[in-house]
Amino acid sequence: MKIGADLLCDTLLANGIDTCFANPGTSEMHFVAALDRQPAMRCVLGLFEGVVTGAADGYARMAEKPAATLLHLGPGLANGLANLHNARRAGSPMVNVVGDHATYHLELDAPLTSDIESLARPMSHWVGRADSPKMLDSTAEDAIRAACTAPGQIATLILPADASWGAAPAGDPVAITPPQPTAPEAARITQAATALRNGRNTTILISGKALRDAELDTLDRIAQSSGARLMAQQSNGRMMRGAGRIALDRVPYKVDLALATFAETEQVILIGAKAPVGFFAYPGKPGKMLPESCEVIDMADAGSDLPAAIAALADEFGVANSPAPRHASRAKPDMSGGALTPDAIAVALAHHMPDNAIVCDESVTSGRDFFRHTYGAAPHDFLQLTGGAIGVGMPLATGAAVACPDRKVITLQADGSGMYTVQALWTQAREELDVVTIVFANRRYQILHGELKDVGAGTAGRNASRMLDLDNPALDWVSLARGMGVEAASASTVEEFSDLLRAACQRRGPFLIEALI
Amino acid sequence: MKIGADLLCDTLLANGIDTCFANPGTSEMHFVAALDRQPAMRCVLGLFEGVVTGAADGYARMAEKPAATLLHLGPGLANGLANLHNARRAGSPMVNVVGDHATYHLELDAPLTSDIESLARPMSHWVGRADSPKMLDSTAEDAIRAACTAPGQIATLILPADASWGAAPAGDPVAITPPQPTAPEAARITQAATALRNGRNTTILISGKALRDAELDTLDRIAQSSGARLMAQQSNGRMMRGAGRIALDRVPYKVDLALATFAETEQVILIGAKAPVGFFAYPGKPGKMLPESCEVIDMADAGSDLPAAIAALADEFGVANSPAPRHASRAKPDMSGGALTPDAIAVALAHHMPDNAIVCDESVTSGRDFFRHTYGAAPHDFLQLTGGAIGVGMPLATGAAVACPDRKVITLQADGSGMYTVQALWTQAREELDVVTIVFANRRYQILHGELKDVGAGTAGRNASRMLDLDNPALDWVSLARGMGVEAASASTVEEFSDLLRAACQRRGPFLIEALI
Repeated sequence: MKIGADLLCDTLLANGIDTCFANPGTSEMHFVAALDRQPAMRCVLGLFEGVVTGAADGYARMAEKPAATLLHLGPGLANGLANLHNARRAGSPMVNVVGDHATYHLELDAPLTSDIESLARPMSHWVGRADSPKMLDSTAEDAIRAACTAPGQIATLILPADASWGAAPAGDPVAITPPQPTAPEAARITQAATALRNGRNTTILISGKALRDAELDTLDRIAQSSGARLMAQQSNGRMMRGAGRIALDRVPYKVDLALATFAETEQVILIGAKAPVGFFAYPGKPGKMLPESCEVIDMADAGSDLPAAIAALADEFGVANSPAPRHASRAKPDMSGGALTPDAIAVALAHHMPDNAIVCDESVTSGRDFFRHTYGAAPHDFLQLTGGAIGVGMPLATGAAVACPDRKVITLQADGSGMYTVQALWTQAREELDVVTIVFANRRYQILHGELKDVGAGTAGRNASRMLDLDNPALDWVSLARGMGVEAASASTVEEFSDLLRAACQRRGPFLIEALI
Repeated sequence: MKIGADLLCDTLLANGIDTCFANPGTSEMHFVAALDRQPAMRCVLGLFEGVVTGAADGYARMAEKPAATLLHLGPGLANGLANLHNARRAGSPMVNVVGDHATYHLELDAPLTSDIESLARPMSHWVGRADSPKMLDSTAEDAIRAACTAPGQIATLILPADASWGAAPAGDPVAITPPQPTAPEAARITQAATALRNGRNTTILISGKALRDAELDTLDRIAQSSGARLMAQQSNGRMMRGAGRIALDRVPYKVDLALATFAETEQVILIGAKAPVGFFAYPGKPGKMLPESCEVIDMADAGSDLPAAIAALADEFGVANSPAPRHASRAKPDMSGGALTPDAIAVALAHHMPDNAIVCDESVTSGRDFFRHTYGAAPHDFLQLTGGAIGVGMPLATGAAVACPDRKVITLQADGSGMYTVQALWTQAREELDVVTIVFANRRYQILHGELKDVGAGTAGRNASRMLDLDNPALDWVSLARGMGVEAASASTVEEFSDLLRAACQRRGPFLIEALI
């Protein structure tokens, strides 16, 4: 007999969702049993739900389709919310299956009962509950449709245990027609094309699928012909960069730098991006990074068909006679020696990263040198922390490696943030994923020392230091990694680091380098 | 000039809240600076918010007053929700301070923006937002009043950055009058006393402050005189037990055992407890553990003054001529040798636990032998996982040790659950807390293998095993602990374990024993 859990599992598979990042509990046991009956579904265990949702995000960014997650009631979902927040900001599609008590058991208020809908809504675009096993195909289809709405959305399907174990109709689900992104709006394309000819100081600000190589080439030709500046949003889900591609900068994180970046800008054309705002508010500083007089032309928002919009802009503006895209040439900056610094790590990466690496960046302050040394590095995808909820780096890498088993994944990981979801290393070992993790071990929440000053709160005294410093005791990342089955080594000089990185890039499987900076 | 953050900090201190478990971010920097100006506030950093809220729970259970927590926006709160869920179920008081963007910055939808209220409500009894720095005393007082409402509640105060940094009135806050628990209701006391004389098969089911030694003595005298059975709820925030105290059993977790426990029960008198229900629903089994014909007398709910209610019952029922309370005598069961088992660990604990130890139990399946071997062990407090959200054990111990620096804390920690909030070990090292952690390393979610069968979903196949087993690779807890600055050793025989436990109980400071069972 087919049960609701089988129907859900079959509906996911019929729609190409064949990877499930999971940490189940009792209320999900029938769904677990259904997964047992469907070996086509790859199940990947995370030892904490923040790993589960962060991995599903990394998977979606690279596979360009949703993974499923399997989470245990309200608290299991709660543990995964921070990385759902990041995924939501990245525009990643995802279908979360959250188990709940059997419908008739809810009124008893058993210990694990909580209001799952209230928890899910802030980080989900769609929240639904399967009231009956018979509806699990249509409920799952609604979830998948929501998840696949451009640019990608978070769908959370609550699965009561009795909907999971109840009898379901026979028959095989078929794939739904996924929703199409919004077609480019002719008037807005015309407005942008006209603006590009008006001689004003112009920035084309882009994100989402505008950051793929072909679209970047087209946009660079438009930029050259128009004299506009091409720039990426501050945080982006995925960006193609390196040699043979356009060398692109992002809006700086620091408010003063961002304000300076746009001080002369008279108009901004947004393509999949939002008008830049401060990551945080600071006393006496503006929240909007554009001058008040700057005109904002919202050519195509994140839900649009960005490649089509960019092609339409190229047609309308005319790039037939424009120069070839300015591809970055292969370049390896000179390597220094001596004490290890974030700068030297970026240089070593420019030397040793293999072609088509996937770089997952949660290096926070320590990674600010990475961009300028790697415009001419081997071509790579660059995945960022998009929502500011720390603890995404190693989970993101885990999911990206599941999606792309033939590509090397490199994680740039700040130590404080890394501790949030350190359990991801175990999944990398379990799945034998090809991930090199570089931990920037500065032994403090370095960014917060800066922010304490920037908000005008002064320098850290005893209580503040005890909340911002991680040096007593120092974390030993080599031990932590080995504790989870990941080989690891420590480096405190450029030479040691470079040797370790080269070796790690030449072998397969997870490896962690603790970079003592 | 005094700012809002100072006013909040002063109001907390004026009300005896002098411990703040924290993981702050940029929006909390002015509150961090205020804490710097108030050295009377002890700030304890957790490297993940689940540690922060779990520690505040453990602190509250032992200190019998709230700690503050400091959390960073929606995602920081989200990371702490699972242990807030447990604290809510334990009846622990807590005041969470959750930073948010400056009020005028919210409309810009900066990357870290989310609906904090929606996230907070399911796990909070009270949620409030400080709209102005001038109101921070009254808003904080409302939060403290809510937290101190019996038996203890979760209050979540959202602190926008501009309320934190804005000018606040001078003057020193004074302590509020905390709300009193509900007085015993005479009619209900009479009803219970009458029922105790009617000769029916009776269970007195208790929780909360009924589980303290003096109240247990009184209740045992009532039980002896009436012939009623005295029993504790399945999960309890804190329970006094060991030699010189009443040997009490709890309602079993397993549904079949719980049903059998109450098969002959004709009436139940609830004192601070709830009528027992299944932790989960199982196909074909009832959700309520009492027979349908069983009468339930709700003598005093969790919000009542339980010691007063118990005293009133003793008066009304009359215990003047009843026998003395049946105190458990000191007893150490015989110690076996050879391979280490959960049973042998319980026996070793009965031998080596020092007087007044605090036992924090998240041993899940492995701890089911603990009770029967330790009725006559050294007197101790027993703290449980109350809400079923795993990952509370080591944080709970951390907070209990902060509250009671002169008592030995012992954590009984299942390995799968332990990985959820493994970062707690670092805080134990940083604060030099006197905690012995025993990890039951069975290398699987053992409980779920049983639940898979119990819900009728069969035995684990390949996909299920990959989600329920932790043996590939095996976690190395000694490395994990050392990676966070905690000394550790591994034991696979009873002799090794007993030696390590004795030594750990005779020294001060954090130590972890990996028990290979």
